[in-house]
Amino acid sequence: MVMSRRRAVFQDASIELAHGSGGKATRKLIEGLIAPYFFKEDAALTDSATLSVGDLRLALTADSFVVHPLRFPGGSIGELAVNGTINDLAMGGAEPQALLVTFILEAGMDTKVLQEEIATMAATAEKAGVAIVGGDTKVVEHGKGDGLYITTAGLGMVHPHANLNPLSIKEGDRVILSGPIGDHGITILLARGEIDLQASIASDTRPLWPLVKPLFDVYGEAIRWMRDPTRGGVATALNELARDTGLTVMLEEAAIAVRKEVRGACELLGLDPLHIANEGQFLAVVSAESAEDVLSLLHRTPGGEEARIIGSLKRASRPGVLVRSDYGSTRIIDMLVGDPLPRIC
Amino acid sequence: MVMSRRRAVFQDASIELAHGSGGKATRKLIEGLIAPYFFKEDAALTDSATLSVGDLRLALTADSFVVHPLRFPGGSIGELAVNGTINDLAMGGAEPQALLVTFILEAGMDTKVLQEEIATMAATAEKAGVAIVGGDTKVVEHGKGDGLYITTAGLGMVHPHANLNPLSIKEGDRVILSGPIGDHGITILLARGEIDLQASIASDTRPLWPLVKPLFDVYGEAIRWMRDPTRGGVATALNELARDTGLTVMLEEAAIAVRKEVRGACELLGLDPLHIANEGQFLAVVSAESAEDVLSLLHRTPGGEEARIIGSLKRASRPGVLVRSDYGSTRIIDMLVGDPLPRIC
Repeated sequence: MVMSRRRAVFQDASIELAHGSGGKATRKLIEGLIAPYFFKEDAALTDSATLSVGDLRLALTADSFVVHPLRFPGGSIGELAVNGTINDLAMGGAEPQALLVTFILEAGMDTKVLQEEIATMAATAEKAGVAIVGGDTKVVEHGKGDGLYITTAGLGMVHPHANLNPLSIKEGDRVILSGPIGDHGITILLARGEIDLQASIASDTRPLWPLVKPLFDVYGEAIRWMRDPTRGGVATALNELARDTGLTVMLEEAAIAVRKEVRGACELLGLDPLHIANEGQFLAVVSAESAEDVLSLLHRTPGGEEARIIGSLKRASRPGVLVRSDYGSTRIIDMLVGDPLPRIC
Repeated sequence: MVMSRRRAVFQDASIELAHGSGGKATRKLIEGLIAPYFFKEDAALTDSATLSVGDLRLALTADSFVVHPLRFPGGSIGELAVNGTINDLAMGGAEPQALLVTFILEAGMDTKVLQEEIATMAATAEKAGVAIVGGDTKVVEHGKGDGLYITTAGLGMVHPHANLNPLSIKEGDRVILSGPIGDHGITILLARGEIDLQASIASDTRPLWPLVKPLFDVYGEAIRWMRDPTRGGVATALNELARDTGLTVMLEEAAIAVRKEVRGACELLGLDPLHIANEGQFLAVVSAESAEDVLSLLHRTPGGEEARIIGSLKRASRPGVLVRSDYGSTRIIDMLVGDPLPRIC
């Protein structure tokens, strides 16, 4: 999350589920309550922090995972926890080097379920070439948790050609999206069985570093900003970008891939796919002159075949995100408000 | 926690509170269930992991905090979370550089309580000279948490003179303890109001780096092992040392400081102060020839005035921890078994 020029104010007397949505309420919590104490006034609240230690540029990140249910088509809490942390590092232009894993276990949880998640995390980390180097385990009484919460911290080394800086974003820069959106959020929703809908859909959880490393190798100078649109979806990530740059993001709806199962579920529930969480996609802002080359390289990279240029940055009287429909009409899309899908990651 | 030569086996069908005690059950969980998947067979399960990145030796650690109640005499969950992570780094000989903080909030929790903890964490980190550089916030439904769980990850830079290595421990090496034991665990117990005992006692939570840095500056070569005896207490930490070195730790009971309030509560409850958690003390194994010098330097360092040499390493037929009483009798003291005090950190 990127800091606004004017900080949000937190006025709620108690914490609600919406404060975990990744949308407006989360922004208020972070900017209004947490950042004033923890961070310097001008700090950028990105998904990973970059530190210069000696001659090295290191990235550090930590995320807690509370997804319910623990397992779902295409993944599980353990797989999310490993990939999510790898992806926060990748979005900071950093190659993941080491992970730490902490568990908060609820007394009474089935050992087999825990063992499965541990095995999944080990396999996911190994597949991504990252070592798990340590961690911690705590146990709380039955009824004070929900089986298993995982927190993963990651250390990464910033790619020598990575040059991410939202202040370098210019009018005309292009927005690239790596693939179809909404798969993860809708999969979790269906896995809960709360709506009567059958669809063959799976979470898109995957590590993004293999997909973005080739881009930094070749086009590091042209890539100005990157974000994985998890909680709050593409709309929230791009609204933060708009706030941060003072520019408007103009999206072409036709270029944004949404599987028909996701679109169907969204229509049924009155949700916008642009607000639904993803766990294996990224957004990038790339200079206009390099955008087609970056896209072409992505298309040749395994897992990047469905990437598209979905829009561009414009100067406008009031920064925000606009979506131009196939029929030429334009609508404003705000950050996610409330939390229609709590605990999706 | 240090790896045994023969790994424990985990045979429990479900997770119990004792698995979070820091004692025998925790060791079984980590060595029997987690380590076989996450770590290489010969990896040392220390409280922080050391990584060589470029020319630098970095330390990484992460801990979850689930202490109940959230506030108690002498501290709070936020203060523990900052100091505990600083201390895990310090015990690896590393100067803390940066912290990440993640919150798992229970819907319905009072904003004021959260705000107090955030303010406490910021003040504790600032006092210790460590920056909080990022984090994450999740919210779970009311009844799926307990107000607030915090996970803190830390990055440290290993002191150039730190040379910690349990394999270098020799017969005759001395064990130094930094101060009186059991204050934290007994404070939490009393704060819960579960036993009818009034005592003016407070948690010993504090950052240990200011206390151990001068030791590394001058006597880095002589310090072979360091550990903060948190969950499971001094007895558990030293039993792990014994297992790991194949040596016996011989303690002099008269040298181990225990406040009379702690001793009184322990007698009432049938607990041994050596099993009670500390949050601001450390154990060090130091070469015999340097032990008095190290102790003298500690005594001149603010906060180290009550440090004592409490014992030494001996060769014996069966490694373990022995305590010689004031009257000359000797007893074996094992790791903590079960969990008389769940959720103390």
